[in-house]
Amino acid sequence: MRCSLTPSNRAVSYPFVHRIRTRFAETDAMGVIHHGAYPTYLEEARVAMLRDSDQSHDEIREAGLDFAVIELFVRYRKPLRFDELVDVSVTLGGLTRATFQVAYLLQVAEETRATAVTVHAVIDRAGKGVRLPAWLSDLVGRTPPITGTPSRH
Amino acid sequence: MRCSLTPSNRAVSYPFVHRIRTRFAETDAMGVIHHGAYPTYLEEARVAMLRDSDQSHDEIREAGLDFAVIELFVRYRKPLRFDELVDVSVTLGGLTRATFQVAYLLQVAEETRATAVTVHAVIDRAGKGVRLPAWLSDLVGRTPPITGTPSRH
Amino acid sequence: MRCSLTPSNRAVSYPFVHRIRTRFAETDAMGVIHHGAYPTYLEEARVAMLRDSDQSHDEIREAGLDFAVIELFVRYRKPLRFDELVDVSVTLGGLTRATFQVAYLLQVAEETRATAVTVHAVIDRAGKGVRLPAWLSDLVGRTPPITGTPSRH
Amino acid sequence: MRCSLTPSNRAVSYPFVHRIRTRFAETDAMGVIHHGAYPTYLEEARVAMLRDSDQSHDEIREAGLDFAVIELFVRYRKPLRFDELVDVSVTLGGLTRATFQVAYLLQVAEETRATAVTVHAVIDRAGKGVRLPAWLSDLVGRTPPITGTPSRH
Repeated sequence: MRCSLTPSNRAVSYPFVHRIRTRFAETDAMGVIHHGAYPTYLEEARVAMLRDSDQSHDEIREAGLDFAVIELFVRYRKPLRFDELVDVSVTLGGLTRATFQVAYLLQVAEETRATAVTVHAVIDRAGKGVRLPAWLSDLVGRTPPITGTPSRH
Repeated sequence: MRCSLTPSNRAVSYPFVHRIRTRFAETDAMGVIHHGAYPTYLEEARVAMLRDSDQSHDEIREAGLDFAVIELFVRYRKPLRFDELVDVSVTLGGLTRATFQVAYLLQVAEETRATAVTVHAVIDRAGKGVRLPAWLSDLVGRTPPITGTPSRH
Repeated sequence: MRCSLTPSNRAVSYPFVHRIRTRFAETDAMGVIHHGAYPTYLEEARVAMLRDSDQSHDEIREAGLDFAVIELFVRYRKPLRFDELVDVSVTLGGLTRATFQVAYLLQVAEETRATAVTVHAVIDRAGKGVRLPAWLSDLVGRTPPITGTPSRH
Repeated sequence: MRCSLTPSNRAVSYPFVHRIRTRFAETDAMGVIHHGAYPTYLEEARVAMLRDSDQSHDEIREAGLDFAVIELFVRYRKPLRFDELVDVSVTLGGLTRATFQVAYLLQVAEETRATAVTVHAVIDRAGKGVRLPAWLSDLVGRTPPITGTPSRH
């Protein structure tokens, strides 16, 4: 398991936040957001972070690169409900030569609902792993470290 | 509106049937299958019909063709519930030079839950409309006509 | 088929518009937004319209009512792509004693990508059809009629 | 992190297997099955295992219980593609007083594509954690242990 980041429970530890409103289509018969909807929320927030960093998903793909998800970890603490506004905090970390990790904190009105980590490999058009592009390492350099939080995991 | 087929309410009017079990992920907070899940059921049944006719979706795409959905109509009569086995009856019809239609009947234990029609354009890799391939017209020729049902629409 | 509204192709004909950014999870192997994602876009825009009218989905459900989708029609004109900003224009119409219709126009940078109509029944907790609530009829009264557009359907 | 099972890479280590065919709707613009579709595959296989053990999801809910997902871990090794038949092997393990774990192996024609673990809490109608029902512990007793595999994680 490569997944090594411990997501902080404090939003201030994250350099980027993206707000998502939950959809009715994402609820299930238990009356809450289905756990399978969360990977899509993480992806939307991750894409928003890249867009914000002047590296859109489109540009990355035009460069012949893609960020394949190779691991996903979600910890569901309290359910999300329909029509809630979810603040998805995002940070990069855990870089290796060819992989990077993203940690997430999902909160509604400052109450933590979930945390998550995704691990990504940079791949070329043939699906082969390649070196991380320089701008990605730079991006991590610019983000505050995730530290100092007495982890409640 | 091109959508002109009237789906029969009698399963025997359809040359092909495909069974799907509903998923928990497809339910919503009303406790039933979300209406947005139905297009996926229709597609799964349509793909199964093509596979059964010896024309897999992959072969079609290898030939540089695709069947874009250009219209979708669903009539929801009674809700589908979690873990139900849905018999999706399918038939082709309404061919023009570059489009065809598919009609659907969704039943659980012979009780009608929904009917639907999709309209498709045959397009090439550039997204341009092209003539229907001969095997598709042949396929329609082999299916019984959808007639004789006093439509309850 | 109850579905009788003809969605206008002109955004100005609609009293309400809601912007959605397409998600990567909603793309398919043809490289465009999968047709099955559209019902969710329509729902998100419909819910936003109700929220804007001071009648949130939650309040409606607390009143013991729900708006079941009984018909869905979508016309796909040009594909939507990943990361596009879609303006979903929405209007109410076609009221009967127990049903109402919603018409939709989906545009990206003023270019029409799709139009749609949904038909809804107002149902109580037992799933029985009930009279439209007064505020809903009032809401329609307040919206400009969809007229005067030489329909290009 | 409660997630402690290490999924075996050998199908014979699992007491139950469920076959799923991937859907076109589940592909993404990279031409493979979107990573967000996997939690739904895991759930379908888990529900099939319960059904097979004579404990259907419906009965569980009628008993006022639900199995909330509290953690999800997926390791994506090789992509799944459209129309592939995925054998999802499933086993229970890691029981505590109020939680249990499920490990998964996803293979296509005996080639491993992914492994996964979900952690579940048994909750009552009010969402409170309760003791595992006896039949669930019995079910685990009947499954072969996941051991002896030189883990390639």
